[in-house]
Amino acid sequence: MTTTSSPDGATELACPPVATVGIIGDGQVARMTHQAAMALGIDVRTLSPRATGPAVRARATHPHVDHQELESLLALAQGCDVITLGHEHTATDLLDALVDAGHCLRPTPAAARFASDNDHARRALTAAGFPIPAFAEIPRGDLAAVDAFARDHGWPLVLQGSADGCGIEVLADLPAFRVSALAATQPRWLVEAAVPTATELTVLVARRPAGWSKTYPVAETLRRDGIRREVVMPARVPAGVAEAAGRIAVSIADGIDAAGILAVELFLTPGGDLVVNEVAARPHANGYATIDAAVTSQFENHLRGVLDWPLGDTTLVAPVAATVNLLGPAHPIQLQRNVPAALEDPTVRIHLYRKDPRPGRVIGHVTCLDADHDSALAAARRAAATLTAQ
Amino acid sequence: MTTTSSPDGATELACPPVATVGIIGDGQVARMTHQAAMALGIDVRTLSPRATGPAVRARATHPHVDHQELESLLALAQGCDVITLGHEHTATDLLDALVDAGHCLRPTPAAARFASDNDHARRALTAAGFPIPAFAEIPRGDLAAVDAFARDHGWPLVLQGSADGCGIEVLADLPAFRVSALAATQPRWLVEAAVPTATELTVLVARRPAGWSKTYPVAETLRRDGIRREVVMPARVPAGVAEAAGRIAVSIADGIDAAGILAVELFLTPGGDLVVNEVAARPHANGYATIDAAVTSQFENHLRGVLDWPLGDTTLVAPVAATVNLLGPAHPIQLQRNVPAALEDPTVRIHLYRKDPRPGRVIGHVTCLDADHDSALAAARRAAATLTAQ
Repeated sequence: MTTTSSPDGATELACPPVATVGIIGDGQVARMTHQAAMALGIDVRTLSPRATGPAVRARATHPHVDHQELESLLALAQGCDVITLGHEHTATDLLDALVDAGHCLRPTPAAARFASDNDHARRALTAAGFPIPAFAEIPRGDLAAVDAFARDHGWPLVLQGSADGCGIEVLADLPAFRVSALAATQPRWLVEAAVPTATELTVLVARRPAGWSKTYPVAETLRRDGIRREVVMPARVPAGVAEAAGRIAVSIADGIDAAGILAVELFLTPGGDLVVNEVAARPHANGYATIDAAVTSQFENHLRGVLDWPLGDTTLVAPVAATVNLLGPAHPIQLQRNVPAALEDPTVRIHLYRKDPRPGRVIGHVTCLDADHDSALAAARRAAATLTAQ
Repeated sequence: MTTTSSPDGATELACPPVATVGIIGDGQVARMTHQAAMALGIDVRTLSPRATGPAVRARATHPHVDHQELESLLALAQGCDVITLGHEHTATDLLDALVDAGHCLRPTPAAARFASDNDHARRALTAAGFPIPAFAEIPRGDLAAVDAFARDHGWPLVLQGSADGCGIEVLADLPAFRVSALAATQPRWLVEAAVPTATELTVLVARRPAGWSKTYPVAETLRRDGIRREVVMPARVPAGVAEAAGRIAVSIADGIDAAGILAVELFLTPGGDLVVNEVAARPHANGYATIDAAVTSQFENHLRGVLDWPLGDTTLVAPVAATVNLLGPAHPIQLQRNVPAALEDPTVRIHLYRKDPRPGRVIGHVTCLDADHDSALAAARRAAATLTAQ
């Protein structure tokens, strides 16, 4: 135990943190992880290149450093029991260098690569026999190959951005492909068959490095105006489908030796087949409901998992939870004025990230618990509409 | 909206807090209030005379100032929408001076005085017709008057410390009174009949200044080795008793125009009578279970109440919650090593305050939810024993 000197000159015993966890990130994932860490006496340190990120505003910070500089990453790691990820934008070779320097990174760089490198994930999932959409890697400019792929699998095609997180485009036909902004910037084209989708599902797996894992009830994502902005938990699918989705997610988690939260997004086709869409190796937006709805939130279980501690109960405390994301460009001042009005429903749970507003940016979410899906979703939609009203 | 300059020279839009709440205090109440504030985008500033308090360790701080200096209080209040209390150790005249300087203090100094000044509270409660233990104010040294009081009400007597929080003593007879350390230091003696007690109850009232209020299910406090260290919610008393306790607490809250949480401790006598023991005008240790067990915790409802926002749902998400306080002198390093072992029960909720350990000091608590009182209490006791094992 160390001692510190207080400003009046007296020396007091210092109560050190139970553990110190470094997070490469400074957004809402880091902010909400810090919130969960406080109860367990865990200190969270984050990497913040800005003075205004959500985690900095939550006072969990190691400010003004860059997640693409090894020096910054090493400074973050100093004194941390474990380093984990708040996003997937850090190059794998930097993560490797952290591990080479003797630091404990969880998830491992190999597991993290599943979330940051679509090509890699698709090849590995295919090799391991997991169901994924038909895909092809095509040299940039080879429109004949794109046309051939579309003849086999039909239009539209999905063009995936590569590792740097530049998103996806759904392209209706060859002329659309020809003028696609994303296609013009990609070093090679990763094209994918568009899966006819009945339901979009997400399974959150909490996992310890030793292999113990727990899954949360499967989440169902709803699109409005093409944007995924609503999540209900549990999903409205037959028990057999939920179990199958859970098995796939746990198999992937085991296969890549995940630690902390692994989020696996799946498509359920109208024919009842499950297809893996995407994998994220960190707490996930589709699991924000677990803060209010689960005995142990995904953020606390992420901390427990990366620290190799026993995992907390993942069951829900209510039959249904519905989460609605709050999107910019709602002016933050307006949003703030609307908070008391939204709280008029005493069961609404509001979470604001203190993010500077930009059009389309998620700046918070609301969760409502209820006895059934329609009631929970209606309450969460009402609250979100009240909060974002002009 | 203001703008800030980030270290790389770029100017970003700043997302200000939804509200800023100053707390006179830096202990676990301030720490857990900060935790609740984060989700709502509320900034919490605390008064910390030390560099090592629980709230400072949670990074919610306005450090190195003294709660008994008006200058410090005024500095805290600067830029805050409202000032509230984390303890009752600040002199009423300082609170009055804050209000005189134009700051919004909730609870009001008058309501705060109920918690800090036993004499005042007893006189006011008696005048308002609330049931309280028989009491007398006796000049220091007048043992004949003490003897006369004891002839009417019987030994033992309870000697209450005055406003500065110096505690109570239960005195068996006149010789014991004569040598009491507390009696020797009190400017005058506030003696009280010891109430034969079947059950100790606490009602938490969340209240807005306008008068809207909600009560949490009545809490029941259990003593072990004479120390109140366990709480179950709801109390194991007939519904009529719980309702009567709730009515008394709400009447007191309305009578003193409370804002935020008002905690009213009551004795239930073997004959079924309710007697008011103590009133605290802030989130209370007997309500810590609400963090994990209620839809809205007492800390969030304290913030909502003092900001005059709609109050959150106070119902429980499980049939029973049991909380066991963790007492020093468990060595913090030992406690920390025990955290993973205590988490082996996946339903245990651990809360550590990062307080420097001293014998008898509360340094954390655990809460367990279950279907019945015995199971919840047994699980919480097991977890507390595991955490504090040497």
